Amino acid sequence: MDRLGSRHRVLAELRRRQGEYISGEELSRKLGLSRTAVWKHIQALRREGYRVAASTRRGYALLDTPDCFYPEEVVNGLRTSWLGRPFYYYDEVGSTNQVAKDLADGGAPEGTVVVAETQKSGRGRLGRSWFSPGSKGIWVSVVLRPRVPPVQLPQLSLLAAVAAVEAVEETTGLRPGIKWPNDLLLRERKLAGILTEMRAEMDTTQYVVLGIGINVNLAQEDFTPDIRPLATSLEVELGRRVERLPLLQALLYRLEAWYERWQEEGFAPVAQAWREASITLGHQVRVVAAERVYAGRAVDIDGEGALLVEEEGGNLRRFHYGEISLR
Amino acid sequence: MDRLGSRHRVLAELRRRQGEYISGEELSRKLGLSRTAVWKHIQALRREGYRVAASTRRGYALLDTPDCFYPEEVVNGLRTSWLGRPFYYYDEVGSTNQVAKDLADGGAPEGTVVVAETQKSGRGRLGRSWFSPGSKGIWVSVVLRPRVPPVQLPQLSLLAAVAAVEAVEETTGLRPGIKWPNDLLLRERKLAGILTEMRAEMDTTQYVVLGIGINVNLAQEDFTPDIRPLATSLEVELGRRVERLPLLQALLYRLEAWYERWQEEGFAPVAQAWREASITLGHQVRVVAAERVYAGRAVDIDGEGALLVEEEGGNLRRFHYGEISLR
Repeated sequence: MDRLGSRHRVLAELRRRQGEYISGEELSRKLGLSRTAVWKHIQALRREGYRVAASTRRGYALLDTPDCFYPEEVVNGLRTSWLGRPFYYYDEVGSTNQVAKDLADGGAPEGTVVVAETQKSGRGRLGRSWFSPGSKGIWVSVVLRPRVPPVQLPQLSLLAAVAAVEAVEETTGLRPGIKWPNDLLLRERKLAGILTEMRAEMDTTQYVVLGIGINVNLAQEDFTPDIRPLATSLEVELGRRVERLPLLQALLYRLEAWYERWQEEGFAPVAQAWREASITLGHQVRVVAAERVYAGRAVDIDGEGALLVEEEGGNLRRFHYGEISLR
Repeated sequence: MDRLGSRHRVLAELRRRQGEYISGEELSRKLGLSRTAVWKHIQALRREGYRVAASTRRGYALLDTPDCFYPEEVVNGLRTSWLGRPFYYYDEVGSTNQVAKDLADGGAPEGTVVVAETQKSGRGRLGRSWFSPGSKGIWVSVVLRPRVPPVQLPQLSLLAAVAAVEAVEETTGLRPGIKWPNDLLLRERKLAGILTEMRAEMDTTQYVVLGIGINVNLAQEDFTPDIRPLATSLEVELGRRVERLPLLQALLYRLEAWYERWQEEGFAPVAQAWREASITLGHQVRVVAAERVYAGRAVDIDGEGALLVEEEGGNLRRFHYGEISLR
């Protein structure tokens, strides 16, 4: 048994007691470790952020687990059946999407998840950067291998937004609105964004990497001045810290559930959920696409996930891509 | 000057004489090489397939160049302004598309071309293999970086078919028909196929690799028995060998010309040329897509390159992908 394995077993035993004390002697006997080894593992767990009470008379008790994405914490309580296996956790990466793409290129299976506490060069849509400071958000990428041609992938991109809205609502009670195609907004400020990347042929998709960034515990002043007026976080909105772990777990669960439903029932249920969360439909919008600007009323999304905009005079225009602003 | 460089200079000098003799002494003096070195280079060129006459009295004369894709042969006479630079030539690879994708992942510029005499595991659409025996066809892959979102890439895939039809027609007089989306047929047998692969986000394309395979000098019996009734080659159709080099050069030239026109004028001219070469439109077809079979009359392609099929009863169905058979 390697040291990491022993530490996990100590943690699992503490967890099983649900905050009750267990004596050092009992731990030592159950796990076949010396009393000194047990003590060293407890110290290591404390360094990782676990709060462990130690009493010479009563032994050890797990009081609190850290709010970070250690695989054992994420997997413990994850309700998915395949999404999140394998699970890659990094303290710091360039971008989780890049790691996920490299893994996917190397054959990583559908359901592979990459999470990092910090992204040094996190990326958003349209080549923009995504500010991803340490342990203050959810910066996650998911490898999917849907058996559809790439023309259907915009649907998946909208699906991810629906899953993210539900995850935020389930864990915080806040319900973000979706700005087409997949930005999550609260008070017209960006809470979360989704970057969808793919490798594909015309007829088949090799893989998709869904990168999802959610601003969780960033304070207003954490944002750089240029994005400060446009961005928000759950902490800013609620006025309190939010545990990231249950939110990540909810996100993965909702994503898996919607993905399976999409494969079974097609796009219609996704589109309906997207419409209900949309803050775009029914509004006057400006769309920048292919270096031109269009204006009109956003009336619906179609069966491919394209945005339908009614221009003045009644002409209906479809947008597969582009950036919109509400007017 | 390395040995390869010297050999190229010997070849260039012979080529400049256009089949006239040049004495060994003159060659030796002009290039600063010993007579023995010149002789060794001549021998090396002969091993590469160059036909060089040698006469003790008159010297050397280049009688014929080999029909293979040595970069100096391809670039000599290439009419493109950027397509084909850089040019990668391999005697044998797994698949030229794989090599091109690896190059593109590493930052290879738009216009990069990969050619191989033989593909050991050449690939076609829908995960099929593409039979690519030694020096009997054109197995080429092109890296493009169009500034369009992936939903517009089916247009590029049709464009490649148009360029291939014109290149074949220009060099042989035969005019293949296009079966949607981009198979080239002669007498209803497959002459050439195109595999389009991409790396993209929803809004932007990172790169496209267009893989084009043309059966040039395969004999009927070269094809494996299972594909023999379905495949043909230029040699089979014409009853004579066809020089591959001018065909590759014409293909790259037409591809560049159409690609530039597409970027300037959009899809309409491409679509028109595609329609004129199509053997699909106006016919009853069966379409296999998403594991279902549809039947109807192929009436047109739309602005995205999708095939429009009129089902019995008049319902119009769009296919972004799928496999069709003419009935």
